[in-house]
This record gives sequence, C-alpha cells and structure tokens, in this order.
Amino acid sequence: MSRSRQRIVIIGGGFGGLAAAQSLKHADVDVLLIDRRNHHLFQPLLYQVATAALSPSEIAWPIRHILRRQKNTKVIMATVTGVDMAARQVLVEDGPPERYDSLIIATGAQHAYFGNDEWAQFAPGLKTLEDATAIRRKLLLAFEAAEREPDAQRRRALLTFAIIGAGPTGVEMAGAISELARASLAGQFHAIAPEDIRVVLIEGADRVLLNFKQELSAYALKSLRDRGIEVELGQKVKTIDAEGVSYGDKRLDTKTIIWGAGVAASPAAQWLKAPADRSGRVKVEPDLSVPGHGEIFVVGDTASVVQEDGKPVPGVAPAAKQAGAHAAKVALRRLAGDRSPMPFKYHHAGDLATIGKRAAVLDFGRINLTGGLAWWVWGIAHIYFLVDVKNRVFVAMSWLWIYLTGQRSARLITHGLAPTAEPLQEIDKEPELNVAR
Amino acid sequence: MSRSRQRIVIIGGGFGGLAAAQSLKHADVDVLLIDRRNHHLFQPLLYQVATAALSPSEIAWPIRHILRRQKNTKVIMATVTGVDMAARQVLVEDGPPERYDSLIIATGAQHAYFGNDEWAQFAPGLKTLEDATAIRRKLLLAFEAAEREPDAQRRRALLTFAIIGAGPTGVEMAGAISELARASLAGQFHAIAPEDIRVVLIEGADRVLLNFKQELSAYALKSLRDRGIEVELGQKVKTIDAEGVSYGDKRLDTKTIIWGAGVAASPAAQWLKAPADRSGRVKVEPDLSVPGHGEIFVVGDTASVVQEDGKPVPGVAPAAKQAGAHAAKVALRRLAGDRSPMPFKYHHAGDLATIGKRAAVLDFGRINLTGGLAWWVWGIAHIYFLVDVKNRVFVAMSWLWIYLTGQRSARLITHGLAPTAEPLQEIDKEPELNVAR
Repeated sequence: MSRSRQRIVIIGGGFGGLAAAQSLKHADVDVLLIDRRNHHLFQPLLYQVATAALSPSEIAWPIRHILRRQKNTKVIMATVTGVDMAARQVLVEDGPPERYDSLIIATGAQHAYFGNDEWAQFAPGLKTLEDATAIRRKLLLAFEAAEREPDAQRRRALLTFAIIGAGPTGVEMAGAISELARASLAGQFHAIAPEDIRVVLIEGADRVLLNFKQELSAYALKSLRDRGIEVELGQKVKTIDAEGVSYGDKRLDTKTIIWGAGVAASPAAQWLKAPADRSGRVKVEPDLSVPGHGEIFVVGDTASVVQEDGKPVPGVAPAAKQAGAHAAKVALRRLAGDRSPMPFKYHHAGDLATIGKRAAVLDFGRINLTGGLAWWVWGIAHIYFLVDVKNRVFVAMSWLWIYLTGQRSARLITHGLAPTAEPLQEIDKEPELNVAR
Repeated sequence: MSRSRQRIVIIGGGFGGLAAAQSLKHADVDVLLIDRRNHHLFQPLLYQVATAALSPSEIAWPIRHILRRQKNTKVIMATVTGVDMAARQVLVEDGPPERYDSLIIATGAQHAYFGNDEWAQFAPGLKTLEDATAIRRKLLLAFEAAEREPDAQRRRALLTFAIIGAGPTGVEMAGAISELARASLAGQFHAIAPEDIRVVLIEGADRVLLNFKQELSAYALKSLRDRGIEVELGQKVKTIDAEGVSYGDKRLDTKTIIWGAGVAASPAAQWLKAPADRSGRVKVEPDLSVPGHGEIFVVGDTASVVQEDGKPVPGVAPAAKQAGAHAAKVALRRLAGDRSPMPFKYHHAGDLATIGKRAAVLDFGRINLTGGLAWWVWGIAHIYFLVDVKNRVFVAMSWLWIYLTGQRSARLITHGLAPTAEPLQEIDKEPELNVAR
C-alpha cells in the first residue's frame, strides 16, 4: 500500500467493522481491518449452532474472503492491545504498531456477570463459535450422561436446562433447546422420556422480550409455556454453581445453565481513556467520534450513542451496521477537510425474535406479527441477511431438512474449550484407513 | 432390556462396530454398543475437513441416530477401561461394568510415531474430528502469520507444508493442501504469492501409494509433481521439532508438519492379554475370535487376521465392515450352540485414492483407472458410501460449489485442541445482539 495515501484502520470484523470497510470499497484511502479472529460471525443464528441445527461454517465466513474484491483493503488477524492516540498508532500483539489517519473501533461486547465472574465457568454465554460448540457439547453430554445415570434425582438435574435472561437470545435458546430435546433427542434414548425434560427460563423483569411491545411479550410468554417451557419472571439470580442456580427463594438443580443476561463493552474505553457508561461503552459524540478526537470513531456495542432527539441507539446488528457505515463516511469527509457536523441517525426497521417452529414475534412499529407467518418472515429475513450465497442455500436446506424430518444434523460432541472439556484420550475408535478405500 | 435374552456387546462405533450392530438388527439378542464418542466418523473424507472443504457435521453422525430404528440396540457414550473375561464383563469408566454373552471389539487404531512420541506435538496425525480441525487451524494460521511476517526466511517456513507418509492419507492431504493454498487462499493475501508456497511429501519407500500397482504409483507421483508438490522418496524421517523436519541428509524448515505415516492398534490386546503383532493388533483365529475365547471377537484395525489362503486382511474400511458383519454372524451362531468353523474371507473390491481436481487412481485388480474419470468415480463412490441421505446431498453440493468457484467454505480458525491453541481472550469482536434483529 502506498505510504502517501491516507489510511483508515478498523478494529473488529463484526457487523459494525465490516459495514465500515465495505462502505470504503471505492474510497481513495488505504483500509486496514484488524480482527483477532479470521471470521465474521452471523451472531443472530449462533444459538442454532449451540442447539445443533446449523454447523459453524454455515454462519461464519473468513473476513478476508468477504473483502477479497476490495483492492484498497488489507485484513490481518491480530490482537489489538491498545491505541497510541498521540502517535496515531494501533498497538498490536506480537507485531509492529499500525499507523492510522482515522480509526474506527468496532470491538463489540462480551458477557457480563454483574460482578459474579465465577459464574462464567458454570453458565457460559453465547458470543463466539467456541461458546456455541461448548454449549452444544454441554447440552448433548447432559443427555448422554442422563442415559447412563441410575440415580433418579441426578438424572432429573441432568435433564433440567436453565437459561438466564429472557431477551431474544434467551427466548430463542429456550425454544431451541426444548425442540432439540423433545423433537430430536428424546426418542433416541432408552432411559429418557420427553416428560423428564425441563427447560426453565429465568428473567429478572416482569415480562419476556422487554424491548418488544407488551402484547408481543404476552404472546411469546404464552407460546413458550405452550411448549412446556417454564418461565420464571421477576426472578433475580442469587447464586450459580456446579449443581444449579438459586433465584428469589427458589433453588433449581441443573447441570446445564446458559447465560443470556448481560453484556459489557470491550475495553476500548480504557484504550482511549475516554468517558464510558456503566457497561463500559464509550460515550461518543452524535457523529460517533470520541470527544476531543475527531479522527477516532466508536460504533456498535462498544459505543454509547444518544441521538440528537435524545433517543439512545440500541445494541442491535442493524444499528451497528448503520453506525459503521456512518463512521466511515464521516471519517472520509474529515480526512478531506470537511468539518461540518454529521450526526448519526439510527433508522429502526423493527425487532424480530423466534420462539420455535411456527412461532415468532415481529415488532415493526405500527405493524405487529405473531405465529406462523411471523416465523416464515423471520426465517426468510435471516436467510436474506446472510453474507454469502452459498450459506443462504445451505442454511435454507438445513432448515428445510429439520422442518421435514425433525432431525438436527450437527449433533456432534467435540472436545473444545467447554468448561467440562477433558483431555483427548489415547484410544480412537474409528478404523484406520492408511491404505485405500 | 430383558435379562433373559443373551447380550452382545460391541466396543467401538467405527466401520467395524457399526457394521456388527447393523447386522444384528433383526437378531433375537440384546445389543449394546459402547463408544467414547457420540459420533461415527466417515474417516475417508476426514482430510477434507482438515483442508476446509467440508465441515465436521458433513462426515459425522451420532451413532444413536444411525441405530435409532434398532429396537434391540442400546448405545452408550462411555470409555472402556478393560475386559473381565472370567466374569464376562466390559469395564467402563465411571459406570457399572456391562455384562456380555458375546463381545465384539472394534476399537480401531491410533497414530504411531515409531517410538518418537515427542513428535506428536509437532506433527499431528489425522484420526478424529479434533485432529482435523486442529490441522485446519494450523494450516490457516500459518497463512495468517505469513501475511504479517516481515522476515523472508520465517515467511518461507510458514508457507512450507510437510506431510510425512505417502499412503492415501498423505497423498490426499498433499493434494488438498496444495489446492487449498494455491486455489482458495493465495489470492486473498497481500503478502503471499502462489509461488511462495511449498508442499513437501516425504515417504520412506521408493514410491507413493505402496499398496497400489506400480503404474498407478507412477501416475500419482507424476500428477503430484505436476501440481507443484515436492515428493521425496526413500527418505526416512530422523527428527521432527518446532522448526521443521530432518530426513536423509536434508533439513526442511517448516511450521506445519502432518503425520500420515504410522498407526498402532488400540490397547485391546492388553485388555485381553492376547498375543499381538508388532503394531499391537490382536492375532485372532480365522473366524475373528480370540484364541481360547470363542465368545470374543476382534475386527478392523485392532485385529491381525490371516485368511485360510495365507493372505492377511488389509487395514481398510471395507475390510472392517465385512469383518464386523462376519463377527456378528459367528457370535449369533455360537450363542445358538453352533460350533462349526466359520472362517472370515475378505472380498477386496479395489483401492481408490485422489490426488486433486480431476486426478485420482483406481486399482480394481484387472481394471486400472486414472485421471478425470477415476476422480469422478472416486467422488460418486464416496458420496454413495456416506451413511445418511442428508449428508450425501450436502457433501455433493459442497463439492460442486468448490468445483465451480474454487472457494472452500469451512475456512474457520476456532480454538480447539491444536498444539498451538491459545486461551480465548477477553475481547470478542462480534457485536452483541441482546435486543432483536
């Protein structure tokens, strides 16, 4: 890349960072995208990897593959350790610093356990492919262990699944676990009957899907309960340990707890020594730049944005995409010397969440939609939003297969970074094929 | 399961064990299949997972799903620790022993490093899904690191890939790595040109595909070299370390070494205190039973079988399948009191191996086939051999996609049990979606 051209560095290849890079495709600048992973992940469907409906490669793509046709864009896989704002350099683990003329930070968020970090080992959250395969492993191992467990009480604990937090992630996980357990698995175990399985969704607020309209929350609650999912509302979690979870004055014995409750921003605020909100998000100007640093922008879940009309920007994928594109546009204009104010305005299309087969909720402001039609719209919308044609075809086929047969194809227990992971043992049960087939 | 019926226990859900279980579908016995994994793996295509052409769920299925319609068969996921032949019990880790009237052992083989076990950390072999994703990670990380490496010599080492052993696994890995590197990846890196990439296949014998006919080995050698793969014949490996491999009087600097050379049987021989051959395989009778134990059978790579005509049974998938079915048949007859001799006879269909796009070799005894036609036959045969309809469709589509676009979709670097695995870090680049989409 020529030294003379100006350089925009983007940290993070999620929805925000990718949108920023893509909107710079034809700009006369050098673009560098840095991510510590090699892939962009379609987070909205991650829960389907965790519940064995989809495989990881169906919802993730190498970032450099997505951007392969952008001649002005370089992608590197590296871990950012900080930002030297005086020298205008991004500090990178085991590598030279990367200079920037303008910087866009889109490093997202991570789980937050409200100061109970020890819960993380018992109640994994769902943010990365590793999280998803670890949760998948936990779910499937619970069934395998239950099949072998002679003690009735321990078997019940193994077949009890608790989800903390009834936002879309929690609701979708609860619905998917219930379908996985009752539709796909139960029939294939000798010692497990569908009625032995308990799925418990625990929420601190007084309704599920808090960001949706009242009536849609009510519909979601009803269809969750119609599916046999126990929903505990207005229940704050007190303790989580290896044997279960305590909330309110209740105790639930369970070997599988999934965290869908809280998130905190990545440490960008520390890098920038910038003011942050409670959950660590950088409080940015209306144009998404960092106060006092017109050349640095923060977007997506790493930023706390209050629009000119006083409305905050929600932590959703469309907002991250729009903010990434906006930051790229402002950065370009600034580099060209234009100092006019360019406030970010979030255009809210609507909220979607699915509960299970033929049950979803759509909140499109004036229009609400529930039930089977909403479910089809949800599915078609998500296939449409997938980054790449191949994955649209494969995800659509995988869903069709499950719809027709009820069989989930990705029911693999592999040794990942699950808290329960054991070392691989010596014996290996597949015959060797060192000659030919 | 009724206590009165006789019980056949099968250890291992690979080709041998699965064939044994399936051939007992209609038998009036209780069948228990024990495997320490939950899935049967289609090993012949494992190298395609390692080279990002297929994803794990396309070549693996839960064993209990495959056997779900066999009412007389129970499947448990457990690790076998030994066999109590006097009490006729299989000893199982953290669980009660499992009694048997007849026992079929099909526990396969594992890598063998000819007494150099320290090589394992530098030169992983390819036996399990974890091995495959670890190797995939190693391959893809080498490219990511090379893109960032300023030092030319270290970059060359990162872009040099060594495969030890030129059996089908080694030949197919070499061809697939070369295609992954040159067709799919090279164009997507700024600092990597196709000519920077070296793939070196090291073989101790004087030709590749030793089990094939001379002329087919010669064809394979030529098409490997036509693809720019360096083939080193008659070269014994002396040392393997983190920086490379030494063989003959040569030293090759490489960060990626893959082991396709040797295997040893799983420890069934110790369990049975039975005579074993050099590579630990139990020397069984012509009917596949253990000497002095007509109720115990060993099949597949765990067994060393000499047929009545003096020919040994090769360690290939078809042989394991045939042996598994034979052992099941003999076990049934014995349980019914029939003591007549029932020697196993292996029917050899032929050997196949693929080198790369439009290049494969088929050895069907009288008929030989090479080139594009052989490649199509190879592909169709492997799709046909896949266990499940869905996977036939998906593998065929994945292959079609690569054939048409050259793009491999499973290029994911995930943190598995790769020797190079780092702990997951705090920051997580995907935007949170705790509200809705």
